[in-house]
Formats: sequence, structure tokens, C-alpha cells
Amino acid sequence: MTTRVEADSIGTLEVPSEAYYGVQALRASQNFPITGRKMHPLLIRSLACIKKAAAISNRDAGALPGNIAQAIISACDEVIDGAFADQFIVDAIQGGAGTSANMNANEVIANRAIELLGGQKGDYAVVHPNDHVNMAQSTNDVFPTAGKLTVLQLLPLAAHQLERLYEALRQKGEEFDDIIKMGRTQLQDAVPIRLGQSFYALSQAVRRDLERLRLAEEEMHTINMGGTAIGTAINVSPRYLATITDNIRHVTGLPMVQAVDLIDATQNLDGFVTVSGIIKTCAVNLSKMANDLRLLSSGPKTGVAEINLPAKQNGSSIMPGKVNPVIPEVVSQVAFNVIGNDFAITMAAEAGQLELNAFEPVLFYNLFESIETLTGAVQTFVDNCVLGITANREHCLELLEHSVGMVTALCPKIGYKRSAEIAKQSLKTGIPVRKMVVDMGIVSADEVDRILNPVSMTEPQLQAVQ
Amino acid sequence: MTTRVEADSIGTLEVPSEAYYGVQALRASQNFPITGRKMHPLLIRSLACIKKAAAISNRDAGALPGNIAQAIISACDEVIDGAFADQFIVDAIQGGAGTSANMNANEVIANRAIELLGGQKGDYAVVHPNDHVNMAQSTNDVFPTAGKLTVLQLLPLAAHQLERLYEALRQKGEEFDDIIKMGRTQLQDAVPIRLGQSFYALSQAVRRDLERLRLAEEEMHTINMGGTAIGTAINVSPRYLATITDNIRHVTGLPMVQAVDLIDATQNLDGFVTVSGIIKTCAVNLSKMANDLRLLSSGPKTGVAEINLPAKQNGSSIMPGKVNPVIPEVVSQVAFNVIGNDFAITMAAEAGQLELNAFEPVLFYNLFESIETLTGAVQTFVDNCVLGITANREHCLELLEHSVGMVTALCPKIGYKRSAEIAKQSLKTGIPVRKMVVDMGIVSADEVDRILNPVSMTEPQLQAVQ
Amino acid sequence: MTTRVEADSIGTLEVPSEAYYGVQALRASQNFPITGRKMHPLLIRSLACIKKAAAISNRDAGALPGNIAQAIISACDEVIDGAFADQFIVDAIQGGAGTSANMNANEVIANRAIELLGGQKGDYAVVHPNDHVNMAQSTNDVFPTAGKLTVLQLLPLAAHQLERLYEALRQKGEEFDDIIKMGRTQLQDAVPIRLGQSFYALSQAVRRDLERLRLAEEEMHTINMGGTAIGTAINVSPRYLATITDNIRHVTGLPMVQAVDLIDATQNLDGFVTVSGIIKTCAVNLSKMANDLRLLSSGPKTGVAEINLPAKQNGSSIMPGKVNPVIPEVVSQVAFNVIGNDFAITMAAEAGQLELNAFEPVLFYNLFESIETLTGAVQTFVDNCVLGITANREHCLELLEHSVGMVTALCPKIGYKRSAEIAKQSLKTGIPVRKMVVDMGIVSADEVDRILNPVSMTEPQLQAVQ
Amino acid sequence: MTTRVEADSIGTLEVPSEAYYGVQALRASQNFPITGRKMHPLLIRSLACIKKAAAISNRDAGALPGNIAQAIISACDEVIDGAFADQFIVDAIQGGAGTSANMNANEVIANRAIELLGGQKGDYAVVHPNDHVNMAQSTNDVFPTAGKLTVLQLLPLAAHQLERLYEALRQKGEEFDDIIKMGRTQLQDAVPIRLGQSFYALSQAVRRDLERLRLAEEEMHTINMGGTAIGTAINVSPRYLATITDNIRHVTGLPMVQAVDLIDATQNLDGFVTVSGIIKTCAVNLSKMANDLRLLSSGPKTGVAEINLPAKQNGSSIMPGKVNPVIPEVVSQVAFNVIGNDFAITMAAEAGQLELNAFEPVLFYNLFESIETLTGAVQTFVDNCVLGITANREHCLELLEHSVGMVTALCPKIGYKRSAEIAKQSLKTGIPVRKMVVDMGIVSADEVDRILNPVSMTEPQLQAVQ
Repeated sequence: MTTRVEADSIGTLEVPSEAYYGVQALRASQNFPITGRKMHPLLIRSLACIKKAAAISNRDAGALPGNIAQAIISACDEVIDGAFADQFIVDAIQGGAGTSANMNANEVIANRAIELLGGQKGDYAVVHPNDHVNMAQSTNDVFPTAGKLTVLQLLPLAAHQLERLYEALRQKGEEFDDIIKMGRTQLQDAVPIRLGQSFYALSQAVRRDLERLRLAEEEMHTINMGGTAIGTAINVSPRYLATITDNIRHVTGLPMVQAVDLIDATQNLDGFVTVSGIIKTCAVNLSKMANDLRLLSSGPKTGVAEINLPAKQNGSSIMPGKVNPVIPEVVSQVAFNVIGNDFAITMAAEAGQLELNAFEPVLFYNLFESIETLTGAVQTFVDNCVLGITANREHCLELLEHSVGMVTALCPKIGYKRSAEIAKQSLKTGIPVRKMVVDMGIVSADEVDRILNPVSMTEPQLQAVQ
Repeated sequence: MTTRVEADSIGTLEVPSEAYYGVQALRASQNFPITGRKMHPLLIRSLACIKKAAAISNRDAGALPGNIAQAIISACDEVIDGAFADQFIVDAIQGGAGTSANMNANEVIANRAIELLGGQKGDYAVVHPNDHVNMAQSTNDVFPTAGKLTVLQLLPLAAHQLERLYEALRQKGEEFDDIIKMGRTQLQDAVPIRLGQSFYALSQAVRRDLERLRLAEEEMHTINMGGTAIGTAINVSPRYLATITDNIRHVTGLPMVQAVDLIDATQNLDGFVTVSGIIKTCAVNLSKMANDLRLLSSGPKTGVAEINLPAKQNGSSIMPGKVNPVIPEVVSQVAFNVIGNDFAITMAAEAGQLELNAFEPVLFYNLFESIETLTGAVQTFVDNCVLGITANREHCLELLEHSVGMVTALCPKIGYKRSAEIAKQSLKTGIPVRKMVVDMGIVSADEVDRILNPVSMTEPQLQAVQ
Repeated sequence: MTTRVEADSIGTLEVPSEAYYGVQALRASQNFPITGRKMHPLLIRSLACIKKAAAISNRDAGALPGNIAQAIISACDEVIDGAFADQFIVDAIQGGAGTSANMNANEVIANRAIELLGGQKGDYAVVHPNDHVNMAQSTNDVFPTAGKLTVLQLLPLAAHQLERLYEALRQKGEEFDDIIKMGRTQLQDAVPIRLGQSFYALSQAVRRDLERLRLAEEEMHTINMGGTAIGTAINVSPRYLATITDNIRHVTGLPMVQAVDLIDATQNLDGFVTVSGIIKTCAVNLSKMANDLRLLSSGPKTGVAEINLPAKQNGSSIMPGKVNPVIPEVVSQVAFNVIGNDFAITMAAEAGQLELNAFEPVLFYNLFESIETLTGAVQTFVDNCVLGITANREHCLELLEHSVGMVTALCPKIGYKRSAEIAKQSLKTGIPVRKMVVDMGIVSADEVDRILNPVSMTEPQLQAVQ
Repeated sequence: MTTRVEADSIGTLEVPSEAYYGVQALRASQNFPITGRKMHPLLIRSLACIKKAAAISNRDAGALPGNIAQAIISACDEVIDGAFADQFIVDAIQGGAGTSANMNANEVIANRAIELLGGQKGDYAVVHPNDHVNMAQSTNDVFPTAGKLTVLQLLPLAAHQLERLYEALRQKGEEFDDIIKMGRTQLQDAVPIRLGQSFYALSQAVRRDLERLRLAEEEMHTINMGGTAIGTAINVSPRYLATITDNIRHVTGLPMVQAVDLIDATQNLDGFVTVSGIIKTCAVNLSKMANDLRLLSSGPKTGVAEINLPAKQNGSSIMPGKVNPVIPEVVSQVAFNVIGNDFAITMAAEAGQLELNAFEPVLFYNLFESIETLTGAVQTFVDNCVLGITANREHCLELLEHSVGMVTALCPKIGYKRSAEIAKQSLKTGIPVRKMVVDMGIVSADEVDRILNPVSMTEPQLQAVQ
């Protein structure tokens, strides 16, 4: 391997000749042997978008010569298109508030721009990573902005899958609308419900999650570009400051706005905590939903067995014929992971000090994973589970008929206490409530089907109380 | 102690004659020896508001005789005014989805109503806890609704203190606007900032928290009253269903709305998770802020010592004269507690099953504590800390003058690499940057004060780059 | 209210004449309006134990006059016996690393000692809170030590209840040893198990928890008394340092040992994190167990219904006759709370800085609550749930007979693939596996009862494979 | 791509001809598009170790023909050596309690064994994934055992780095033993300490972590191999049951023991929670330590600046010459991640139901990451930070001399109150305490150096109180 020698404040280091990254990325890759995972591709893409926008602003401000600006812009476009992915060598979890990530991008873009201008990689007199690519920028405005751009690219993917889930649940709500079954509270027989109502109710929680995701996106729109080191906009020209957010908007197509207070926007990460909190809340709903599906499909013979989840793979390596609720299980697992990530994110945000929060890398690592794994989980949940659910109509009815839960409907007529005695007796003797109340003369044989009609118990407009 | 005998489905139990609670509350108090803390007074108050509204709706629906309704309403008014507080004997953390809390309220109100009607406590033929006080209700709509009403009474108290904090920080921002000091990133000297800017930036995070608190309130407005056991509105008359939310609005003065899907609203607690997430995010901002104040006031002789926190108590039992940042410390402690509570709340919400989440008591226990302790912490933070902060103007300037951070301002002129060398030399030799650059001929003696003016480095409009 | 005037470094303050607390506790009570809960009685007791031990050590070291020492000792004995509980007025969550708690104790004990010596409360020339009661101590050794003593008083209470749970589960294991039922994995029918085995297995997890509790106790034995402010033992006489731990051992009867490195022991709280982690692990086991009981007792008609939990209270305010698993529910709720507390504890421990961790108050608040609520939850779990569980022997068998899970036992004979086909067919047609395998000639009619004997499937020694 | 057709209970699927994995792994890879990360290499290795041990046990039990056993063993050896890594295609987070992981291993090993026996991949008549490779096993004993084996391979790597850290801190403790400086509590000047004492104290926390790691290892030794599906050892021959743990011990060299209660060992994951809790506690200590180093090295001009961390990379993209504490920062970030992971692990363990916990994949995912990232963080902490720390001896002394903290040493002589007044005066006037006490006649000029000697204040045996 041939090498070139590069220098930084620490000293010199041999960098592979063909490398687009430089001394700073190389040192960082050695300093941070943590996860073995590189930075997220969309984070790299976002860094390149910012560098491109900055080059445009700097060129228009007269601070960056046109040919250098153009070379930087071209190099950025290549990175945006996915080139040089292997040149981003820094671990996703890194010390230094993202400086290594930013410098890795600065070096790759500088060296590619040098090449485009006919120079040799490493000859930073042509295009300098700090003075040209990073001009008017600091890690402290670039990195959080890149994080927000990344989140804004990930959130719509999650929203898309959640919309599909919402539709799938509503569809099942319609499909199962006339299946009557026993509702359960605290896992005990309660009162009748229609299976379609259950699915429709689940869809409503997803609808709220979708609304909250829109709030999450709004939290990400405000950026601190132009604030540089600590938000005071040191080394930034008025023209750059006036145009950089516009240019980021143009380059990314995302509706970014400049923070009113750049100092605040540089040091506080509460927006990310809010996004994570919303993702976590969604995970809570999903896991509850996944648990419900596992309960309702428990069996096939010794459980509830009101619904069937589609069989997607052999359930067991030892128990033949066993089919397991593997998709709801992975949904819950992702939920647990997302909830854990939320706490790592919370701690990282809390640990900010004075003019900067230096713990963004671990925050991003967790937040990106949360959104992406939730997206994948919802996708497989829709495609490999919800859409294929079928109902066991007769079994639902049979269970209902054997239960005493419909005794609740007698309360307005005979009071809680007598109803409770009937329930107790019915459970003890096995005589159906329906028969008991006729035998006891509480309800006439003619009326019993009307008054103890489980379907009418499931909806107010279907009910004729007393 | 004289007693009366009461019966429930389990059997009979002796209840103190003078007790307003009945057999069900008594059993519950024995079943749940958990925290030793009773239910929150505002939760009890909210239960009474609901019972009052239900009595009105039931009376107007013709289901509840006028005299019984009136007695219940009067009893509720007394509870709302704080009477019978000692009669609510169930532990705050209780099994059963709040049934014990609800029945405790039903019993106290029934017995007081019986008294008002001239009856003997325990004579439930006069007013029955279930059939009259709980008429057309279930724990499963009453309890979550009571929780939301409670949160809606607590949140404005938090918001009020946060508004005071916002104003206090802005006030300090103005007061300290002309104090120039060194900004720090990663606890290392960075570039100049004005102390007032720092305080103003902190205020901006509080402003966002206040906006999010408004979203939190909105999450709490939707209630499931009328849904009864599982949201299917069993045992509810159409007229009751049509009026109950209005009556709760009238009784409480809070802008409650009926859920479109009562089934969903009965089983999913994501709204509470969202509120907790917002409180947690606020706690993150507060703790970061508290840490900053501790850092800036560290010393008095061996720390940063740029500001002084007001001395509020002796700092040490052994070290005379020591004054400690006790108020920021309690703020951070409350933040840790709130963050931990958020996890308990998350787990409780995730654990819901089918038509109900039975884990609301522990969720409420944690959520009420989070809001209240945050409120108390912010109050003392404002009154006993922020408002009394003073600045050490000369020390701020002195530290700044000794640092090399202002070398950053040279970058646009001489580039990152040469600037870094100057910084390194200055640190090594102790020769001020200002002198070095003149000696080296980089900046003329005339210009040096203009170019290396720390005040102009703190605000873009004050800067004249190159 | 008559008052006396007391002074501290901040100034003067009017203290109620009859108060045993003094100016420092009063200021603290005003500074920390957080939880409204006072310090734990056992924490106060522990502080008094330490003060007594210190008075003995100081007296024996010749540093504290005998009569003052005796008065302090007598005052401590009264506090240890529960006197003056209302004089401890500081909020449980307080800034200042426990200084307010320590000074509250110093003041109460000093004033009581003054009284005992015939003086007037507030006349600290007689007995001084700092110079005499706090002699050779600092909050920074007293408060963490008091926390450990408190934990060591709470842990045995938890262990006692867990031992009772262990025995109760074993007893049920024996009682249900011959009840055969279907085992379930992932809520799907798996292979047979005996109900007694299930309960016995649960007991084993409790056994491990008990072993870990012993490790937890060991973590608490090492104390830093004598280290004073930062562990360097400033203002401590060699004789005091040599005797203080012995004296604490004698006063408390607990096997405390002096830390080898007092500096480390003053600043690091990892021992408390370990204890909380062990309590949390126990909570995980308990909640899993509680969930299992809720699942197995689900029904009575539309669930699993293999066991019955004892009915302890009416289950519902609207659904007559409903009995809910309220005790397992409260167990899970306590588990959620404990898990949330563990996070608060973790953050508090992580936030230590340099020579001290100032966040002990919130750590103790959460840790004491975790241990105590877990103790209460286990107690009611044993008494009101586990001991009263009954089994539905016939239903267990019936469910088993209808299932196909026993097909697994055919694998060694006919392989996984053919077994899977039989399972599939049996589920589809409703023909029992037992009949199918005979019809298909796989097993002879004579052998089928032996080979497909569910009881022999539950234990290796009962099996005769192939 | 040529394919072969494979069948499972779901139907048929085309598998690439050259693939060693089969239909079940392929379906799983499609069902779980979650993290994009494959299973941990050591988990795969551990699965192969188990398969090898099982083949030996089955062969010796006469259940598995010798040639098939030998082929399986050889195939396992190859996997153990790292072969076929790309054939393990299932996502690390997967539904189904690890069945997909287990079947992926069964398929790869079966197909390789088929090849070794001269057959064609996919011809499972030769060697069957379930009947031969998985013989006498279930995912439910194989997967948790593989998880424990993996943890036992990872923990020593962490312990090794922690031992290096322990030594490095002790070494610094010696190196800095004679550097006197101010100790700080609550970030306020306290009393003197020697820098070496601080480092030595840090080492003691690491020592405790190392002891706890040994307990963590012990938690992992007990395995449930032979329990198969639910711990009842169905389909297991007595001979296999008697030898499998021994064989695993031989194959892995790890001291595994068979669980006394295989049913318990199959369903409860508290051992993993304990390990995670211990890792988390270690992370707490490391983060506290990292924070201390960042505080002590803050500056270089406007912070504490008592020590210097080695410069490992340029600190800033905009601020020339800035050197940041990037290594301690990454340590804290890893700690946050580990703490978050602990909660995901806790939730996964809590979610177990009845005879199995189906959430092991996400538990392993988090636990492996916790141990590995902690290992990497400690490694770079030692090599790139701790070992290179230097001290600013003069600055330490200078800060100390300007502070008033040594006034504490006067308390035994003149009492807390007068000492406090001196401290206050000294801070106000700037007159050193040393001079004040002589001027006031409290200490004679001869004695002052002895009584107010900071070095003697740092160690009891150096002190001569009064």
C-alpha cells in the first residue's frame, strides 16, 4: 500500500495514497473502536448536502473562488449520489461532538474536489478541508443540522408504513364488523364486542401516532447553520448567514428554517428528545397491539383462538406443526429496543454542557436505529401479519355464549347486586344466564333475546336500555 | 369502635360505623399495602366531579330520581371542596385498573348522600354505590377520565412556574447583556460570548417547553366517558351519552371532548405517555440548565466562577463558609426522578391488554409526581436561584483575555493551519495572541483591536469579516 | 407562635420556640418544596445511630466532654426510638448531598441534648450542632452511611417476604404435582407439563433472587465514616478513625466495615446501583410470574382458566360477578415502578462529580421506595394470591386432550416432517392425533397410550424414548 | 442464479443452489427486515459448538449413526472456525425466540454435512436439519445456551480491558502522589487532596467492577440443554441428558453446568438481566470517571486545567488549536448506550410468558452490544487517554493557595462558626486565610505552616489534630 503523509495539530500520519479521507478521519477511526458500525448513509448524504449549500453560499458571498466552489459542489453531488461510501471510516459512536464525522466529510469532499481540479489527493493548497469545504461552518452547526436532515428523511418512511398499517387495520375492522365475541378486561370475560370494533380501535391509535409524527417533523425543521462554533456566527459573512438556510432548503427539498436564537439551537437537543419520545409512544402502541394479536391468536386449542395469524415460517425446531406469532413478537422486540434507545437519547441530551452538547453521535445512533427498525417492523407487521389475519367466527360466538358477561346488561333492570348473584350462580351451575333469568321470571321468554342480545350490547345506537 | 356489616361478592366485612367508605374500599385497603400513600387529592376531586356530572346526566335522562340525584350532587360538591379526604383509604398503587379508587368514591358519595337524605350509612337501599352513584359508568371510563382531569389541573401549575422561569432567564439575559466572557464547548475554551446571550438562550429552551406543554394539554382533552366497561357504551342511555361530556365540561370548567372511538379511548394510554414524554423533555432542558449554572458558578477560587448563585443555606456541616449550588442540584435530582418515572409510565402503557389497560394506577402515581415535583423544582429554581444570580464581570473578562480562543477569528484571514500554529505557540509561550499577530506582521497594531475584538465576535451584525 | 432567632452564614431566621430543628433545617424546608414527603423514618433512625456512635468515639478520643457526649447519646437514643419524628422537616428530595438532612439531625439532637443538660433550645454554646453533634463528621460520610444502614434494615424485610413466596410456590408445586396440562411457548400449544412443575419452576427464580439479595447486602457493608468531607479524614483524630466503624457496628448490630479507600467510598455510588439492579431483577421475575398467573387464570369462560386466583374484592363497578386478578396486577405495577426507579438511581449515580456525588437524596428516595413497595407487593402476593390458588384439574386435562402438541413425541420415531403433517391434519380435521397415528399404522393400538402418554412426556425419567 | 426448491410447513420456496442455508432461514430473512445486522459471529460460533456437542451426545446415545454424526461434527468445526459466515442470513432481531437462528444453523450444518457425505445440498434424506442436526434439541434450550456461551466469550475481553484500566489508574495514582491540589464537592472548593489519591480512588471503583464481572460470569454458567421445548426434556434420551452439558464443556472449554430445574432455566432470563445490570453499573463508574477527567482537564485557560489529556486529534473544524476530551466523551456515550440497552434487556426479560421467553433475540442484541462497546471504550480510554495524562503541578498548587478551603482544618481549634467568618472575610477581602489567622492571633506565625499544611490535611496519619 502506497501512502501519502498528512499533518494535523497532533503531528503527521501516513494515509493510503488512494484514500479520499485524510489524517483527521484516520486518527478518529483509530481513536474510536466502538461499534464497528460506520455512520448512517443518510447522515453522510446530509453532510454532503450541507457542504454543497455552504459552497453555494460562500461563492455567492464572494468568499469562495468560483472554480473551487464548483469542484466542491460536484464532489458533494457525487457523495449525495452514494459515491465514496467506503471513505467514511469513522465509527458511528465517536467522541468530539461529530467533529470527526464533519472532518471525514470535509476531507473526502476536498480530495475529490482536488481531483476534479486536476490536483493530487492530499494537496490541500488546491482545496482545503477546513478553509474551503468547511468555510463559514463548524461541526457544531453542521452536525446537528445533518442529524435533523437525516431524521427528516427517515420519518416519512416510518409514516408511510404506519399509514399502511392504519389502512390495514381499518380494512380488518370492516371485514370483521359482524363477528360478535367476548370483550375482555384484565384478561377476564367482560361484555360483548364485535371483532371489527377491536381492529378499528387499534387503527385509531395509529392515527394518533401519525399525527404526532407530523409534530416530530416540525421539531426538526429549525436548524442552526450559520451559528458556527457556539451560535454567535463567528467567521460568518452576513451574506452567507442570510442565504445558507435557503440553500439547504433548495439542495435538500426540505422545509428547513433558521433558528431565531442560534446559540440556543447549538446547545440544546430537546427537539431530538421529542422526536424520540414520539417514536417511543408509537412503539408502545405497536407493542400493545402486537400483544393483543398474540393473545387473540393464542391456541390453536388451549388458548383464545379467536383469530388466526398467517403462518409465515415453521414455528419450532422440535415441535412439528407449531406456528408461532413471530411477526408480532418481532414488533414487540423492536418496541423494547426503541424504548431503551429513548433512554440513551434522553441521557445524551441531558449531558449537554454550556455552549454545546458533545453527545450527539450516540444520540443519532440510537435515534436513527429507532426510526428505522420501527419502520421495518411495521412493514413486516402489515405485510406478513395484519393483512393476512382471519377470524374464527364460530369459535368467537361459542365462547361468548358460554360466558356470563352479558349479565352486565341486566344491571339497569335488576341492579348490580342481583346481577352479581345470577352471574355467580350461572358460573357455578353451568346454567346459561339467558335460561336463568327466564326461569327466575326476571325477563320473559319473549324478551330475553332482545334484552340479552350481544350484538346490541356492542353499540349505543343498537341498544334499547330498559 | 362500633361497626356495621357490609357485604360484597366475596362475603361480609365489618366496617367502622362512622366510615363513609364501605366494604369494597376497605378490602382494597387491605389488599394493597404498597406505598403507604393515598390517592392524589386532585384525583379524588376529579372523581367527584365525574360523579356529579354523571348524576346530572342520569337525572336528565330520567334514569335517576331527582332527590337521589340531588343528594349525590351535594355529596360530590362536598368532596370537591375537600371534605372526607380521610375517607379515601386505598393506596395510590392498586390492582384492578382503578376499580378500588372508583368504588371508594362511589361508597363515600353514596353514604354521604344517604346521610343527606336522612338515612343511615350503609343502607344502600337509599343510595346505592353501584346502581346510583356509578350509574351508567364503569371504572374503565371513570378512572382514565379522572386521570386526565387531574393532569389538566396540574399542568397549568407547571406552566405557570415555567413562564416565570422564562421571564427570569430573559431578565438575566438583559441584565448580563454587556458582560463579555469565553464560550466553552466540550468544557474547552472556544470563542467569546456575552453572558446575557447565554441566559437568553436558556430561556428559549423553556419557551419550547411551554409550547409543548400546550400540546400535552390537548392530549388530555379527549375522554371516554359513556364508553363504560370496554367502550361499547353498554348500559348507557342515549341521552346520557349525549350529555355526559358536556356536563363534565360544565362541572370542571375544562374543555373536555368525547372520543370519537370510545373503544380505542378505553384501552390505549398513549396520550399519557406523550404527556410524560413532554415533561421528561422539559426535565432534560432543566437539568442541562442546572448543570450549566453549577459549572459557571464553580469555585469560588478553583473553578470557573463567572457567576454567583445566591447563598440559600450553609453548604456544609464540616466545611465552614462553603456555599453550594443546592437549588440547581435539586432541579437535576427532580429531573432524574422524572426521567425514571417516564420509564415506569412507558411500561405501564405498553402492558395494556385487549379492551383495557389495567395499569393506570401506577401510571398516574408516576405522572402526577413528575408534574408536581417539576413544578416545585422550577418554583424554587426561579425564586431561590435564577433571580438572585450575579455576575463576576471582571473575572469573565480576565479569563477571556488569557485564553487563545479568539484566534478563531483569524481563520478567514490566514487560514486554519496558521491560526492553529499561533494558538499552539501562544499557549506554550504565554504570549497573548493579540501581541503575537502584531509581532508576526499578520495584523497591524492599528487593526488588532478591531479584528480581535471579542465583543464583535459575539454577534454577526457586529462583525466585519476580512 | 413564639419564636427564637437563630443565625447561620446566610443571616438570621425566626425559628418556632418549641422546635428542636434549627435555622438550617428551616431554610432547607423552604428551599425544597418538592415531593411533600419527609425523609424516611429509618433514614432518620440511621442518622441518629451514626451520631450516637460518633459521640462515643469522640468521647473516647478525649475530644468531646463526657457530659456533652452523654447528652448527645441520650438524645440519639430517643430519636432511634422514634421520638421527634415531626422535627425532621426537610423534603426527601433535597439539594446539597444530604447536608440538610444531616443538619436537621444535628440540630434536633443538639437541642434535645441541650434540654437534657438543662439548657434552652437554641443555646448552642451548650451543645453545638456542628462542633459537638457533627464532630469529626461530614455530611459526606454521614449521609451515604445512613443510606446504607437504611437499606440494610429494609432488605431483610424484602427477603423475608420472598422466602415466604418461595415456600408458597413450592407448596403449590407439590399440591399440583399430578395435574397434567398443556405447556405453552409463545402462547401457542407446545407439549405437556404438570402444573406443579410450573409452580416449582417459579419458585426457583425466587430462590435466585434471594441469593442475589445476599450479595446486595454485602454491597452495603462498606462505609466511609471517618473520611469526612472528601475521604481524606480531615479533622478526624486517629482514635476516632480507629473506633467509629466498630461503634456503628455496636449501635446498629449491623456488620459494617470501614472502606479501605475512603476517598473512593465517598464519591462512588456503584454499590447502590448494584442493589437497585438486584431489586430490579427480582421485580422482573415477579412481574413475569404475575403475568403467568393472570394468563393461566384468564376466563372464567373465554380464557385459559387452568387455575383460579382467590377472589379478594369485587372486580368491577359495572360488571357484576366479575373477579379480577388484582393482586398480580399490583405486583406488575410495583415492578414497573421499581424498574423506573432503577433508571433514576442510575442517572443519580452517574452524575457524581469529583470528590462527591451530590445526588444521593433522589437515589435514596427511589431505592427505599423500590425495596419497600416490592416488599409490600410480595406480601400481598403470597397472602392474597399464591396461597389461595386452586386448579381446574379436569379443564387442564380437557384442553390437553384437544390439542395436538403431543405429536412432538413422535419425532424420534417418524421424523419432524411426517409429524408436522399429522399435526396439520389433526388440526384441520379435528381427528385426535392419538387416533390418526393408529389409523395410519404408525403406532399400534396397544402402544399408543404408552408412547403418547402426556404424563411421561413431562419428565425425563418417566420417558422411554423409542 | 440457479435454485433448488425446498419445502416447509408453509409451502415451497426457491433457495439459491449454492446456499448452505435452507428454506427456513430464507423465510426468516424475509420476515425480519429489522436492523440490517446479522447475528453476532460468536453467537453463530456458539450455536455450532452446541450442535457439535449434541451430535457427540446423540452418537454416544446410539441415536445418531456414526457417519452422520461425524459429518455434522466436521461441519460444526468449520463453522466454529469461521466458515460460512455469509450463510447466516437472519436479522439479529427476529421473532420466534431464536427458532430462525437455530434453524439457520441447523440448515447450514446439515447442508455442509450432506456435502461432506457426498450428497447434494438440499437432500435432507442424507442429513436432516431437524431430525439429525437438531436431534434432542429445541430452540428453547439451544438458543439461550448459545447466548450464555457468547456472553462468556465476551466478558473476559471486557475484564481484560478493565484490568488494564485498573493498572493504568493505579500507575497514575503513584505518579501523581505528591501533587497537592484542591478537592471539590458539588463543584465548590472543599479541602486539599493529592492528585494521586484521586486516581487511586478511581481505580478502586474499577476493582469492584472486576469483582462483579466475576459474579456475572457465574450467572451464565447454568444452562438448560436437554430441557428441549419447555424444560421437560421431551424427546431426549437419558444418556443424552446425562452427557450433553459435559460435551458442551469439552467443546467450548467453558465451565457450564446443567440447571437443576430445566423448566425454570427455560423460561426465566433473570441471569441475563443480572449481567446487564453489572455491565451498566460499570458504565456508571466509567462515565463518572470520564466526566471527572473532562472537568479536571477543562481549559486550557478558562477552566480547571489541573491535568492534561493527551491530544489525539484536532478538536475542532473551525477553532484552530482546540484539543477536546474526545476519548472521555466517547466513554460517556458508550455508557449512555449501555444504560439504554439495560432497559431494553429488562423489558425483554419481563415479557416472558409461561414456558418460554420469546424475546431473547433483542435481549442478546443489546447485551452483546453493551459488553462489546464497553470493551472498546475502555480500551481506547486506557490507550488514548489515561496512560497519557499529565499534571499541571504548579497550577494545582496555585489554585489551592488562593482558595479558603483549608479553613476547615481550623474547626477543631476555633469552632465552625468562627471558621466560617474567617472564610467569608478571606473571600471578601482577598487576604489569605493563613495571614488572617496569624493577624487575628488564632495561630502563631510559627505554627501556621504546620496547622494549615495542605499535605497533612490529605491523610489521617499525616495529621496532628489540635
